[in-house]
Amino acid sequence: MRAIITLTTDFGWSSPYVAHMKGVILTLCRDADVIDISHAIPPQDIRGGAILLADVSPQFPSETIHVAVIDPGVGTTRRIVYAEIGGQRYIAPDNGLLGLIASREAPQLLISIESDAYWRKTVSRTFHGRDIMAPVAAHLARGLDPRQLGPSFHPLVQLDWPQPKRSASQVTGEILFVDSFGNLITNIGNADVAPLGDPALLTITFRDHQIGGAVATYASASPAQLIALFDSQGRLEIAVVNGSAAAELNVKSGEAVTVLR
Amino acid sequence: MRAIITLTTDFGWSSPYVAHMKGVILTLCRDADVIDISHAIPPQDIRGGAILLADVSPQFPSETIHVAVIDPGVGTTRRIVYAEIGGQRYIAPDNGLLGLIASREAPQLLISIESDAYWRKTVSRTFHGRDIMAPVAAHLARGLDPRQLGPSFHPLVQLDWPQPKRSASQVTGEILFVDSFGNLITNIGNADVAPLGDPALLTITFRDHQIGGAVATYASASPAQLIALFDSQGRLEIAVVNGSAAAELNVKSGEAVTVLR
Amino acid sequence: MRAIITLTTDFGWSSPYVAHMKGVILTLCRDADVIDISHAIPPQDIRGGAILLADVSPQFPSETIHVAVIDPGVGTTRRIVYAEIGGQRYIAPDNGLLGLIASREAPQLLISIESDAYWRKTVSRTFHGRDIMAPVAAHLARGLDPRQLGPSFHPLVQLDWPQPKRSASQVTGEILFVDSFGNLITNIGNADVAPLGDPALLTITFRDHQIGGAVATYASASPAQLIALFDSQGRLEIAVVNGSAAAELNVKSGEAVTVLR
Repeated sequence: MRAIITLTTDFGWSSPYVAHMKGVILTLCRDADVIDISHAIPPQDIRGGAILLADVSPQFPSETIHVAVIDPGVGTTRRIVYAEIGGQRYIAPDNGLLGLIASREAPQLLISIESDAYWRKTVSRTFHGRDIMAPVAAHLARGLDPRQLGPSFHPLVQLDWPQPKRSASQVTGEILFVDSFGNLITNIGNADVAPLGDPALLTITFRDHQIGGAVATYASASPAQLIALFDSQGRLEIAVVNGSAAAELNVKSGEAVTVLR
Repeated sequence: MRAIITLTTDFGWSSPYVAHMKGVILTLCRDADVIDISHAIPPQDIRGGAILLADVSPQFPSETIHVAVIDPGVGTTRRIVYAEIGGQRYIAPDNGLLGLIASREAPQLLISIESDAYWRKTVSRTFHGRDIMAPVAAHLARGLDPRQLGPSFHPLVQLDWPQPKRSASQVTGEILFVDSFGNLITNIGNADVAPLGDPALLTITFRDHQIGGAVATYASASPAQLIALFDSQGRLEIAVVNGSAAAELNVKSGEAVTVLR
Repeated sequence: MRAIITLTTDFGWSSPYVAHMKGVILTLCRDADVIDISHAIPPQDIRGGAILLADVSPQFPSETIHVAVIDPGVGTTRRIVYAEIGGQRYIAPDNGLLGLIASREAPQLLISIESDAYWRKTVSRTFHGRDIMAPVAAHLARGLDPRQLGPSFHPLVQLDWPQPKRSASQVTGEILFVDSFGNLITNIGNADVAPLGDPALLTITFRDHQIGGAVATYASASPAQLIALFDSQGRLEIAVVNGSAAAELNVKSGEAVTVLR
């Protein structure tokens, strides 16, 4: 069975750096199946990468090796780590990128990658994705025991994640990110809202906008209508039907959203 | 032999939703070969997706499973269907996306996908690409008989496709789409034009522009010259050599183009 | 062992033309592993493609087949060639695209692809990537002797590449390309600069800017600071920490950069 190695980076799809990593991986492990998760994380956006990894990586077969390179601290003393979380395997700089996943389920194994025996012979100061993470992933895909990579350590670096504020009559959260359709994804989950009652009967407020009740699907409203609904991960989302809420309302991450009974 | 599953969506390359689908597919069918056809169909552009599928899918090995997700009606009563057309296999919402292919060659089998036995356990209201189409594709790749997916039905939803108007002395058609080089691809095929005589001697008109004869290749004209030629699918195309006709002339789909003897 | 075929084009990620080529390849060689190197080379930018191929292709396993389609002369008498260079295999139009690689290491074999026995049955005038290069790559992946493709020839077309000018006290080069982070990559290598002494003590000048010494990593300077460093290929690079030097300084390829003792 071929090992699966996924790549998540902020390199951009127009970048050759992704192909550098694939070349290094395939040279060491010819039959690995290398799958792109995303190369469109905004440059240096560790939070965006952490959300994406937490959403997507659990969809993959267990034992998949996920390599994530959003690494503004490359060449400094920040750790590069190997983690086993929820049956998946991760290689990433320890800068918060794995923090969100690790906050959902405790890591089974955390290794600080320190032994250069499994690295590229020449390691640059600016591209550890190619020179350290890619070859380590390939060696793991070939069956290397991760304990050979370096000592175990604890804990992973954690970023602060904003939590929604819940009261008896309302929940206030914020826009977590904007998806590729321009939909505004919030940090308010359906479990946060459930105590307030039927989502179709609640009011969602956002800037000057009042949305009367969450709908079930995009198509249950009219084109160009501003709606709220729960996305495929169970998060409250604000959208413009067949349009881009982010572009039309000029919205960015961090703005407040409130759900009222 | 590994099964091939292709993906065609309007998610955008910056979207994580493609990777969700790949994760689901590989979890159910580890050795499938998942190939991206395009994720750059403009959002909700069913016509663009239909043209692209009709152009590209026949290039693939027979039995390839093509999953197409341009699905503005997600969560409504629109069907999700399985179709066998010209030796290829398709999974898509029945919103016209498969209509163009089916108008070229009659489907050998049409199944309405209704049995949830082969779906993801939890099906969201907004992402049937991940929750229904991806797992069904993976089960088919593993050998599932498509008749297990639901009842057969007939016919597929068809969109209206503009046809060129032919007379003894001219053919009038329209711009069907703009390709990634900014070339303007029309709905006028070389068979439509053949009765008018040698394409090099015809006149192609478009807005105020008159182009004297179709050339054989881009390089047979000068840089920046406005030319007409037949594209690799046999369609009349208007192009600016080493430039973008769409950007320079500010053209969109639907504008008229006439070929005169 | 599966053959690896890479694709490098100027088609753009939004183009269906890449998928045409993948379909043709997989139809002829079902178990090839087709890897995208880049489809974001600017249209007709042979130099950009040549640099990218020279940087990336040597990272791949030996015997990898690299298909490169930046082909403004498609349909003219320009050759399509097969080359073996440094253990890698290449298929490309002979327009300079392979020149940079061939200037680093002499080709072991050069074949002019002329026998249509291994081409698509119908060859368009505008898409030799699909109609000639893709099927030839697939036949080679299946074991075809490249000498069956046509006669050998010599030499490859070469473009002029600007060389840095070195004196006892300074090196003057130019910006070769802008990478996906907006970093400015020059044609000045660390070997060019080595005779001037410790890079941390040199001065890098560029327009009105003076940069005092090359740093080792992005993170060793402050956000928004203009820095110089050596990239992962050993080339002098000018960057804005956590920003885009190209966007902020409005720089393009070809501008002069000088390193002074």
